[in-house]
Amino acid sequence: MARNKTSRRRSNSIAGKLAARERGDDGGPRGRAGRHGGRTPSGGYGGAGDTQTIFGLHAVAAALENEARHLLSIAVTEAAKETLAPLIEDRCLAPEIRDAGELTRLLGNEAVHQGAILRARPLEQPTLADLAVVHGQTDAAEIPPRVVVLDQVTDPHNVGAIVRSAAVFGAAGVVMTRRNAAPIDGVAAKAASGGMEHVPIVHVGNLAQALRDLARDGYRVVGLDGEGSATIGDVPRKAPLALVLGAEGPGMRRLTREQCDFLCHLPSPGPLSSLNVSNAAAVALALLTT
Amino acid sequence: MARNKTSRRRSNSIAGKLAARERGDDGGPRGRAGRHGGRTPSGGYGGAGDTQTIFGLHAVAAALENEARHLLSIAVTEAAKETLAPLIEDRCLAPEIRDAGELTRLLGNEAVHQGAILRARPLEQPTLADLAVVHGQTDAAEIPPRVVVLDQVTDPHNVGAIVRSAAVFGAAGVVMTRRNAAPIDGVAAKAASGGMEHVPIVHVGNLAQALRDLARDGYRVVGLDGEGSATIGDVPRKAPLALVLGAEGPGMRRLTREQCDFLCHLPSPGPLSSLNVSNAAAVALALLTT
Repeated sequence: MARNKTSRRRSNSIAGKLAARERGDDGGPRGRAGRHGGRTPSGGYGGAGDTQTIFGLHAVAAALENEARHLLSIAVTEAAKETLAPLIEDRCLAPEIRDAGELTRLLGNEAVHQGAILRARPLEQPTLADLAVVHGQTDAAEIPPRVVVLDQVTDPHNVGAIVRSAAVFGAAGVVMTRRNAAPIDGVAAKAASGGMEHVPIVHVGNLAQALRDLARDGYRVVGLDGEGSATIGDVPRKAPLALVLGAEGPGMRRLTREQCDFLCHLPSPGPLSSLNVSNAAAVALALLTT
Repeated sequence: MARNKTSRRRSNSIAGKLAARERGDDGGPRGRAGRHGGRTPSGGYGGAGDTQTIFGLHAVAAALENEARHLLSIAVTEAAKETLAPLIEDRCLAPEIRDAGELTRLLGNEAVHQGAILRARPLEQPTLADLAVVHGQTDAAEIPPRVVVLDQVTDPHNVGAIVRSAAVFGAAGVVMTRRNAAPIDGVAAKAASGGMEHVPIVHVGNLAQALRDLARDGYRVVGLDGEGSATIGDVPRKAPLALVLGAEGPGMRRLTREQCDFLCHLPSPGPLSSLNVSNAAAVALALLTT
């Protein structure tokens, strides 16, 4: 599967422009998007359909840079057009120019579009078996693959932030349930800040079976659980690892827990013991990848 | 300053009940609260006023457990009342019973109250000098204090998650600007999941001056910055540390950066280099506390 291989140098120059833009106030409301991104725009959200709506400057820039993305249309403010111009030209897109208010109305009041809305086909995603075959063989000097497995994590901000962290720490993929999970749509793509263009996302029908498959393919399955008796030090760092996180509150389901080789708690020297799920994923990846 | 010293055993039994509750669907909408929590409820939000509105089961339970909290009133659903009953009785509060819809209307549609809304006086907070005096002298065997410093982080979900992580990793406090920062209100308190009852939050007028004061009191000032040349390995772990994070996008302001002893990037072996700000705070605390 082709993934974006554009050099980081170019991304960095766009990132600089984006940072400059974010110091201004163009592009609609600044806070978080509301639950599931407010109203569904025409064209449809979600990985299940054949169109994704991607908004936010970083997310749109990353999608434009990803040659594996089939793009349909882009609507931008004048200011966002200027920021994204070289990327839009490279992809031979004719941008619709709209004012920020029109873009806000298109997405719903709570969506933080930052002046850019892209419609595109969802990325082709690998199967679980592809993850094992493609990423299972590593150089002895490299850190073996890490896969993040989400058991019904339903908040798209959390799922997006986890995909972003997976991209930062070079995880081989994110595995999630097809049902009772946050849609891979504009809100999650915005929170992923371009991470969706880099990290394979595998949806599975039966998570317990997926964990058995990963174990068969050489992964050790580590459930992150505040009540777990293992510590990060007990986890075999030289093995491919599937790091499993449950929903906030209920945690992992019983059948998910039963597939874990380790139930591991993260260090918590302070008075609280439980991190936000996206923070737990980032900390686990940091402690087990670096 | 009195902080909550209730044993963790009791919190854990409440936590178990809360987890059980979260598997149900009582208590209003489940997604994230909207920008700045939707409409401001009567009584007023924010640390600047004399009343805070705290919602969400974990946040309300932690506030009820904190004897330093002066409580004014509580409104709960029947189900939340049952979950919180021992804590409400201990504090001699007479709960108003409301249905979930009434609570939702009170807070605004996007607020995730989970059936419980508490009105209380803001906690008395220390000054910067108190942080240094109270926490500056540590046993040689202990990890010296870590303070998280936020330079104009405006998203209350991020600020709340950072306070939660600070509580998990035992940070001595969170320092933030009085202006251009997320209000310490219901949305941040909900995201902090009880962390606000444990972590001192110090608001300062002049952040550069605050960093000079912390440096004078023995802290090394570490700016977290993707462009920073230092690595986590360069940071002196045996010193008290002030970990400074800027807003997403613009990053730290120039005057803030100039006060840093180190500009340090977090490890990022993957194709993206920048974590969500709350994830960056959690990762830095994890790598420098454990």
